[in-house]
Amino acid sequence: MSDLDAALARLDADREGALARLFDWLRIPSISTDPAHAPDCRRAADWLVADLRSMGFEAEAHPTAGHPIVVAHRRKEGPSALFYGHYDVQPVDPLELWERDPFDPVLAARPDGAQEIRARGASDDKGQVMTFVEACRAWLAATGDLPISVSLLIEGEEESGGEHLPGFMQAHKDALRADIGLICDTGMWSPEAPAITTMLRGLCGEEIVITAADRDLHSGHFGSAAANPNRVLARILADLHDADGRVTIPGFYEGAPELPETLRAQWAALGFDEAAFLGQVGLSIPAGERGRSALEQTWSRPTAEINGMGGGYQGPGFKTVIPSKASAKVSFRLVFDQDPHAIRAAFRDFVRARVPADCTVDFIEHGSGRAVAFPVDDPAFEKARAALSAEWGREAAFIGAGGSIPVTREFKDVLGMDVILAGFALEDDRIHSPNEKYDLRCFQKGARSWARVLAALAG
Amino acid sequence: MSDLDAALARLDADREGALARLFDWLRIPSISTDPAHAPDCRRAADWLVADLRSMGFEAEAHPTAGHPIVVAHRRKEGPSALFYGHYDVQPVDPLELWERDPFDPVLAARPDGAQEIRARGASDDKGQVMTFVEACRAWLAATGDLPISVSLLIEGEEESGGEHLPGFMQAHKDALRADIGLICDTGMWSPEAPAITTMLRGLCGEEIVITAADRDLHSGHFGSAAANPNRVLARILADLHDADGRVTIPGFYEGAPELPETLRAQWAALGFDEAAFLGQVGLSIPAGERGRSALEQTWSRPTAEINGMGGGYQGPGFKTVIPSKASAKVSFRLVFDQDPHAIRAAFRDFVRARVPADCTVDFIEHGSGRAVAFPVDDPAFEKARAALSAEWGREAAFIGAGGSIPVTREFKDVLGMDVILAGFALEDDRIHSPNEKYDLRCFQKGARSWARVLAALAG
Repeated sequence: MSDLDAALARLDADREGALARLFDWLRIPSISTDPAHAPDCRRAADWLVADLRSMGFEAEAHPTAGHPIVVAHRRKEGPSALFYGHYDVQPVDPLELWERDPFDPVLAARPDGAQEIRARGASDDKGQVMTFVEACRAWLAATGDLPISVSLLIEGEEESGGEHLPGFMQAHKDALRADIGLICDTGMWSPEAPAITTMLRGLCGEEIVITAADRDLHSGHFGSAAANPNRVLARILADLHDADGRVTIPGFYEGAPELPETLRAQWAALGFDEAAFLGQVGLSIPAGERGRSALEQTWSRPTAEINGMGGGYQGPGFKTVIPSKASAKVSFRLVFDQDPHAIRAAFRDFVRARVPADCTVDFIEHGSGRAVAFPVDDPAFEKARAALSAEWGREAAFIGAGGSIPVTREFKDVLGMDVILAGFALEDDRIHSPNEKYDLRCFQKGARSWARVLAALAG
Repeated sequence: MSDLDAALARLDADREGALARLFDWLRIPSISTDPAHAPDCRRAADWLVADLRSMGFEAEAHPTAGHPIVVAHRRKEGPSALFYGHYDVQPVDPLELWERDPFDPVLAARPDGAQEIRARGASDDKGQVMTFVEACRAWLAATGDLPISVSLLIEGEEESGGEHLPGFMQAHKDALRADIGLICDTGMWSPEAPAITTMLRGLCGEEIVITAADRDLHSGHFGSAAANPNRVLARILADLHDADGRVTIPGFYEGAPELPETLRAQWAALGFDEAAFLGQVGLSIPAGERGRSALEQTWSRPTAEINGMGGGYQGPGFKTVIPSKASAKVSFRLVFDQDPHAIRAAFRDFVRARVPADCTVDFIEHGSGRAVAFPVDDPAFEKARAALSAEWGREAAFIGAGGSIPVTREFKDVLGMDVILAGFALEDDRIHSPNEKYDLRCFQKGARSWARVLAALAG
């Protein structure tokens, strides 16, 4: 039996142990955006440190001004990899839409017989991180060693802006640098087809707060005479797109060229089922720029989305109030060479130009990151692709993705590294939504995939 | 000494008694919207019945499916009036903003030496109701009779929808009908200038809920391909007004003619201080239809206001979600002959025309009522105006009001009566807010004003 076969056999033999460990971690409600959960983030970091140490890693939870960052090493001569993931999770509201406590994980059977792990973070990203951790554990248990030198960098602010990671990476760049980056925070191309994501959109998040009167007003006394910040805000948000779905902010499309023909051909060959993609969430019409496919809209076109907006009375019944304030959270997905800083500045100008003389606007800066594209002709990418193809019995695809993983920019810019993004999430995992799940098969075959990738990178 | 002078002298002699009675009533926390306070509403009704009976009224608290309605009569030949008010009060939250227990009334001196009654309900409406009750008491004590036939109709659901009053009025219309209605639930034109409110705007409240996908989505995966209900809603709400601040719903202005020249001239003579009106809440520019004064905008022009809107993530931090739903509460203030039902239907058509094929809209109907305008050339109005002018030493004004008092429509439609709305509240009474107060001077001169109005209506 080869070392790889031994590691794979060990994974298969320890499936219940792996699940129990993941459940332990999922029970910690490490919601990074809510200050009340800061102690839970600390616990989630400490839990991982203890687990990695038990396997023989040097591991430590480094304090930051925000949540701790876990770094672990098990070094040896030869090729090296740095695995990145995050232990923090999204908030769980609206809680009433969950079928059970989001932090009481359970294994549930679907009508088709498949089993899924249900909990906040089951897929994004604790379940995905543990695929890699379990692969390492199996290699160590089965062979006493890892095929290559491995470091882990697991942060706790991925869902809340990731503010402290770039500085940390800068400060620890010598210790962190490796031949290749590995990240498990993306999805399969389909439930049967693995994928390596080589293009990711960037992000720029911004919050605006419109203030009119210095207090809430009665709409009977003041209605129509007093400026209504809801109305001001609705105007601004409506102006963001033209009738063709294009973003109207001046200069927005600078650095966002049309997709190269080679990629366009590759993507066309994927056989993307647009009707199924939209149909799974009850939609049927691509809502972005007119005349472009949903795949193009989500992978290679920039966009502006209103992620949240609110003002005035939103409870049951009716209240004839004119609120003092209204606010919105807006994010821009960026592609190719779009500059998040330039777009943030252009957006602020766009907003200021629409705020009437009697109102004021405050801006709150949220996270940002440029888009990335990795060199698919690098041999490490082909090795990883072969390893994934072997595990799943189907050729792994190089794909794009609509989401942003800002840390991939840090890998590029701070550490000078490319990153292999191989993840096992499925489209229906409901990440960021109630009733998040991770297929048990993805968890188990994901771990086996990483066991194979570690072997492949040693070759 | 004339009978009127005797009644006025009696009011002056019994000031402490009047204050003690009002304080007794204010101590009962008759918050109608909170079911836990239903027994207190009953107590407040019974307290009033006992007080009116002690003065020689036939009085009774009539049970309803909600809170009791107090009806009292002291009939005689000749002119008759029906006085309306309410014994229920607004909730007191946020309680921590009150300087003392809202239901432990106190007389407090302001820095300028004036005294004010502080308690929930001091102004709205217990203090105002007691100005009329004390006027009746003084007439009866000083002369053994009232100048005219008087009935009272005091409800307990004015602050919580007033659901049961219209049916009650319909069922008791023969007993309630009188020559003129009297209501003390409005304000002075200024601390020195009394007023009769003769125009009130109507109201039509509507809630819309836009649904796109059947669940919340991650804006990375679905952003730009999936319809965003926030964007759909912002477009609809922004479209409600044109660049001149006019409402764009087809047919909206039907039944809303320009203000008659006579009223325009009267209002111009009021010397309304627009800068002070807006300045008190930190604003400076009338935000309604371009080219119209704030007074015209709030008194005689219809309007559309977004009282509440919300969709997506509104908590701290950022969440890159595309929500499934977004909703808004919109109200229309109506004038003259605008039809709330026609406007609700036109608004729904307006919204439906802007909902994309992939989204749905649900409508939730909230309250509605037509505007009212009373005939200021009716002799009763001139008599009341003269009485108020005599008490305050200053010409009372016929004014408009931006708010709605739905019961005035019931007086018109069910009882066929006009209503003299004479109240002594001031702009700074903080009704519906913490630390509500009623100026002692308003309470005392208010009672003297009603004593004069009763005499004037007999003439």
